[in-house]
Amino acid sequence: MKLVRFGQPGAEKPGLVDKQGAIRDLSVHISDFTGANLSPASLDRLRAIEPESLPLAPAGVRLGAPVAGTRNFVAIGLNYADHAKETGQEIPAEPILFNKAPTCICGPNDDIMYPKNSDRMDWEVEIAFVVGTRSRYVEEKDALAHIAGYCLCNDVSERRFQVKRAGQWVKGKSAETFGPLGPFLVTPDEIPDVQNLAMALDVNGDRKQTGSTSTMIFSIPFLLAYVTQFMVLEPGDVVTTGTPPGVGSAKTPPEYLKAGDELVLRVEGLGEQRAKVVPFKL
Amino acid sequence: MKLVRFGQPGAEKPGLVDKQGAIRDLSVHISDFTGANLSPASLDRLRAIEPESLPLAPAGVRLGAPVAGTRNFVAIGLNYADHAKETGQEIPAEPILFNKAPTCICGPNDDIMYPKNSDRMDWEVEIAFVVGTRSRYVEEKDALAHIAGYCLCNDVSERRFQVKRAGQWVKGKSAETFGPLGPFLVTPDEIPDVQNLAMALDVNGDRKQTGSTSTMIFSIPFLLAYVTQFMVLEPGDVVTTGTPPGVGSAKTPPEYLKAGDELVLRVEGLGEQRAKVVPFKL
Repeated sequence: MKLVRFGQPGAEKPGLVDKQGAIRDLSVHISDFTGANLSPASLDRLRAIEPESLPLAPAGVRLGAPVAGTRNFVAIGLNYADHAKETGQEIPAEPILFNKAPTCICGPNDDIMYPKNSDRMDWEVEIAFVVGTRSRYVEEKDALAHIAGYCLCNDVSERRFQVKRAGQWVKGKSAETFGPLGPFLVTPDEIPDVQNLAMALDVNGDRKQTGSTSTMIFSIPFLLAYVTQFMVLEPGDVVTTGTPPGVGSAKTPPEYLKAGDELVLRVEGLGEQRAKVVPFKL
Repeated sequence: MKLVRFGQPGAEKPGLVDKQGAIRDLSVHISDFTGANLSPASLDRLRAIEPESLPLAPAGVRLGAPVAGTRNFVAIGLNYADHAKETGQEIPAEPILFNKAPTCICGPNDDIMYPKNSDRMDWEVEIAFVVGTRSRYVEEKDALAHIAGYCLCNDVSERRFQVKRAGQWVKGKSAETFGPLGPFLVTPDEIPDVQNLAMALDVNGDRKQTGSTSTMIFSIPFLLAYVTQFMVLEPGDVVTTGTPPGVGSAKTPPEYLKAGDELVLRVEGLGEQRAKVVPFKL
């Protein structure tokens, strides 16, 4: 299934994408895609519904992030060997974890706003997974059963905040609109091989990032197992798994986003995001 | 008011402490102390209730953390000059921020469990504030109005996970039971001067930490304003504000917690925590 949330910010309804690509309204069957509604049993119930029996969502409706109520938004740093190299850093011996504030989550095509006092906003196309089952000291062999689905994520970053403002990356990863998720939450049965998905990111039509999940240093099941050695993950929590080469800050000279820029992100099987960069507004 | 949540884990009811120190059951007036119920208007409604009109909670009942549904648990690093010195680090030019996973939150007197594969668990007595109003680019002069209350926090830390496991402190700050909060959420009107509260932590009856919020490098209103330059905080979010000197890892030789240890933490006006350290259990 390709699950979506559609409607105005804060008032999204749950939906799914039918075979023709149209959005169908699931709100008579489920309240929202909160963690509690992403369990295997809950997803099986949705799978039994005939999409054509559901009302169509309004054409052109805005999409929200395809998961609601996320409490923990974890991110993995430097998880592609060639990206680690372009940033001038060693390949990490084990995954680097940091947090994005849950309030940075937004819809896949929402405007991305410059934070106040910022001039180094950068892009990172990534694949994120959403937890479907409480995860505590999970073993790698059991990890995939804990994943409700995958979604495209832009791990938007402010590089000065991240590394020049007295420590810990969370500062540069958490501003509002820094976590566009979606368009879809794609259930694992629709992804033949999650470690072999093409990824791309364009700015104003110029290709900036080209990659594949096949070059991840640490695989998705390894990452879920790894994170749960340090903390309990709950249904609805999101883990975004790192970016391939081509971020702006690693280019010579560095390139940063500017107001008016248009971003297109794609991950094979997970859809695309189209977002515009806008200036800060209080 | 001194607000509490009492009952078994996951089934806590909201309550308040009356003038005699007894816990009164508020559950007919409010569902729980989630962020939405910590607004100034909501707290004013509770303030108008005569405590003696409320049923008494069962004597000796367990206390949970005094806030429910926290999504973002932010912590400040090295915020006491003498603590920064004992760790051998510079006084930071601006606050260091890191995250604790929301699933680390537990009751004030709950057992503190060693994580798996861990042998460097350490203590940190702190004062935390709980956000009552959505906070976005707040100015320092307006910051206190965004705070619903204060509570005692033990920022339990695993030092090897924090600094020896490939980066970012969140790894050593997030294990389950690493965030005991409470006993009380104390509303600001009960605290004459939040920057002049005595703090202490004992392990097995030996004083380990003695401090005062008067020696914080960055004050609480400064911290709230600062954090909200990087991320939006929501009602129910918790920010714990750093620890005074005396952590185990900074002693010569280093001291770490061991199973069976008994901790007592106190912050003036915020009550006390009594917790036992227990071994890892799957």
